[in-house]
Amino acid sequence: MAKRSPEDQLVARISRGFPALREAGLRLGSGDDAALWQPLPGYETVLTSDWFLEGSHFLREKHPAESVGWKCLARAASDIAAMGGAPRCFLLNLAIPASHTGRWLDEFLEGLRRAAKFLRCSMAGGDTTRNERILINVTVVGELAKGRAILRSEARDGDLLFVSGTLGEAEWGLRKLREGKAHARPLSTTLRKHLYPEPRIALGSWLAKHRLATAMMDLSDGLSTDLTRLCEASNVGALVEERAVPLAEGVPRHEALRLGLHGGDDYELLFTASPKQVRRLPRRFHGLPLTAIGVITREKKIVLLKADASLVPLQPSGWDPFRK
Amino acid sequence: MAKRSPEDQLVARISRGFPALREAGLRLGSGDDAALWQPLPGYETVLTSDWFLEGSHFLREKHPAESVGWKCLARAASDIAAMGGAPRCFLLNLAIPASHTGRWLDEFLEGLRRAAKFLRCSMAGGDTTRNERILINVTVVGELAKGRAILRSEARDGDLLFVSGTLGEAEWGLRKLREGKAHARPLSTTLRKHLYPEPRIALGSWLAKHRLATAMMDLSDGLSTDLTRLCEASNVGALVEERAVPLAEGVPRHEALRLGLHGGDDYELLFTASPKQVRRLPRRFHGLPLTAIGVITREKKIVLLKADASLVPLQPSGWDPFRK
Repeated sequence: MAKRSPEDQLVARISRGFPALREAGLRLGSGDDAALWQPLPGYETVLTSDWFLEGSHFLREKHPAESVGWKCLARAASDIAAMGGAPRCFLLNLAIPASHTGRWLDEFLEGLRRAAKFLRCSMAGGDTTRNERILINVTVVGELAKGRAILRSEARDGDLLFVSGTLGEAEWGLRKLREGKAHARPLSTTLRKHLYPEPRIALGSWLAKHRLATAMMDLSDGLSTDLTRLCEASNVGALVEERAVPLAEGVPRHEALRLGLHGGDDYELLFTASPKQVRRLPRRFHGLPLTAIGVITREKKIVLLKADASLVPLQPSGWDPFRK
Repeated sequence: MAKRSPEDQLVARISRGFPALREAGLRLGSGDDAALWQPLPGYETVLTSDWFLEGSHFLREKHPAESVGWKCLARAASDIAAMGGAPRCFLLNLAIPASHTGRWLDEFLEGLRRAAKFLRCSMAGGDTTRNERILINVTVVGELAKGRAILRSEARDGDLLFVSGTLGEAEWGLRKLREGKAHARPLSTTLRKHLYPEPRIALGSWLAKHRLATAMMDLSDGLSTDLTRLCEASNVGALVEERAVPLAEGVPRHEALRLGLHGGDDYELLFTASPKQVRRLPRRFHGLPLTAIGVITREKKIVLLKADASLVPLQPSGWDPFRK
């Protein structure tokens, strides 16, 4: 038999060391033309894809390869959490320079495998090719009990608006990284949240299982931008109370509010709950704070109630690759 | 309500005009964090992803945008055909320069929509961002009656080896395109096969439904490279009869054999059938020739029986991005 081609050798190396196929519902994983998958009986399939591109989403010289591996999967899995689902398997699409098939790839795979174990998510395949810049696209496949998905479009006038965790840390972590403080150990909380975000799978699943939220999405592009999306999908508005937004510790006070309102990459959950549901929500979910930051309104505007009691429009000012 | 962000406007424009969600098994398509999908009862899910990158897989100045749109979906769907499945929906991951959000994008979407209709495949979402070079990754989700998938790994000693259609046209079409004959109308057969390949969905499904093949894959990187993969997965070898390989008309004779053995991008099906199955195979399937080109052998070598009756090793010499 002729020797395996270089591409096939690489694919074999990439596919090793992930959680077992069978536990993920995979009858067939990498190595054939396609994977074969099915969810548990009574469950439906949740599908999402995300770009993770050198230059746009990470910097080759600044981001450790291990973080690139962790984060490309974690951020895509966050979209599954945002529906109330659980990730089960993923397709990795990777394009790298030939110079990066050695140590960089090993460290990248180390981070990816750690994330896959953390998320209990198996590898179902993907596509590997060569490119001068590092390009990553991840498709995550999850499952969710039929009819239990929490959509963006179901927020109603009078619902309360919640976020999990604290906001603004990840963007502050990015700034520190740009200043060259990436490899400091132990990692600060802000850096860790930027480099190794933990999607809120358990919280999302729990809210869906107990029907405790009317609408939900994850915060990837900043509260102001993502809340605008949720309100548009639900055909409602919102009032956000500035003082209620849970800001990150470890971010200087003069920056904290701006980063909390507009900073991206936090992967916390933004959700709405009816007054009846609110009574059943704890203040913390396994230690993670759940904070009411405002209310859904009939008037289709998003306004910020400032600390001085004035009302100002909250413009979407998070990350948008096509904004001029 | 604040105006939709530029990215959201673009996503809304991209999502329009595809086959209806419900017919594709989608309860929710684009516009939320993730899509919700389920196959028909008794079916399992088939998953595959493919890169389609400017510079590697197409040339911005040479390939019409409409072909880029058609081909990025068609070639990914070919992997579903290769299992015996039917494509149902897809996730489009698109990164384009701001300069390409106008006419280029319209033509790209025109080609993509035509392919989606042809393949009866609906849009389930994806991710859109900006990049200087055009980057595309497509995940296709298909379905297949449980237990009927045809894998690469089930070819057995004594099985006959078949290909659909003719081989080598697509690579010859690419060469013509490079020479600047892309926009000639009407398109020649070779150019059409390169620009608008038609994955063999109906044939793949039919072979799976009637259990008429032991192993199968699609030909994307060239017969010599892909047959090596099938043999390795099945732990067998093969003998290919040079004179039996169905070469393309319209390719000059001195080039035809090399292109037929090693040329990529044909998206025909390569499959094996036991002697018992062979009797039930027609010579043509809805007009598409099915040709026996050799036999599976116990000895793990791939050999070519030349026209002069000599035997030579058939080395994998198709496309490999990592070959030096």
